[in-house]
Amino acid sequence: MFELDPRLQNDCHVLTKYHNCQILLMNNKTVPWLIIVPETHKVELCELNNSLQSQVYDIINRLSKFIQLTFNPDKLNIGALGNVVNQMHIHVIGRYHLDEAWPKPVWGNVTDMPYDNTEIEKIRIQLLDHLKMYK
Amino acid sequence: MFELDPRLQNDCHVLTKYHNCQILLMNNKTVPWLIIVPETHKVELCELNNSLQSQVYDIINRLSKFIQLTFNPDKLNIGALGNVVNQMHIHVIGRYHLDEAWPKPVWGNVTDMPYDNTEIEKIRIQLLDHLKMYK
Repeated sequence: MFELDPRLQNDCHVLTKYHNCQILLMNNKTVPWLIIVPETHKVELCELNNSLQSQVYDIINRLSKFIQLTFNPDKLNIGALGNVVNQMHIHVIGRYHLDEAWPKPVWGNVTDMPYDNTEIEKIRIQLLDHLKMYK
Repeated sequence: MFELDPRLQNDCHVLTKYHNCQILLMNNKTVPWLIIVPETHKVELCELNNSLQSQVYDIINRLSKFIQLTFNPDKLNIGALGNVVNQMHIHVIGRYHLDEAWPKPVWGNVTDMPYDNTEIEKIRIQLLDHLKMYK
């Protein structure tokens, strides 16, 4: 039985499930910020079996391209930290030279700026379209 | 012609080359901190061809296991940011509940604590042994 960590539930919106991973949108529109949560109880990427690890890397590629095409960032930041939320999750974030935290990492360096529901639904539809197109 | 970014040259020691990647040791012994530099001029992981991308992911696994076995950290942090140094590089870092920056990311949050040469050579030998063993 897999349950999303309460902190992730609180900070993010679940956009969709793709293969064995949940794809979340961090509820902060300062930057486009997606999170991949593989449905596993393992904690480190290197501990995943080959099949799930390949899925995660495939989804990192897909979300990277989605963020590039949709939000036109200056740089991508990919990170698997898990120092605060222990459940394995991988950040895929679009960064801008003019964003609030640049050039620092976003963690701990951006003000709360929640999306409204219309914005979240727009991103969900854009993401689902992207995932369909590149299946 | 591939040349290591001057900032990486300055902050790190090149431990070895493995496949098409250089493996660096960040010259800060606060935490065990390795950096993979694929010999490419691409900037984002998702832009690598399949073969080089697979090599990078394979090396992330190998370095993760190396850090787990050698330094027994509480958590691994994996990150590809590139906000300060534009040349593609991937951090593989061992973290401890009691390290100086915990639970924050290490970037910008640890004091300089350079290795001496004997310590660097010890880590190089340990790494080369590990890479041989898991070839």
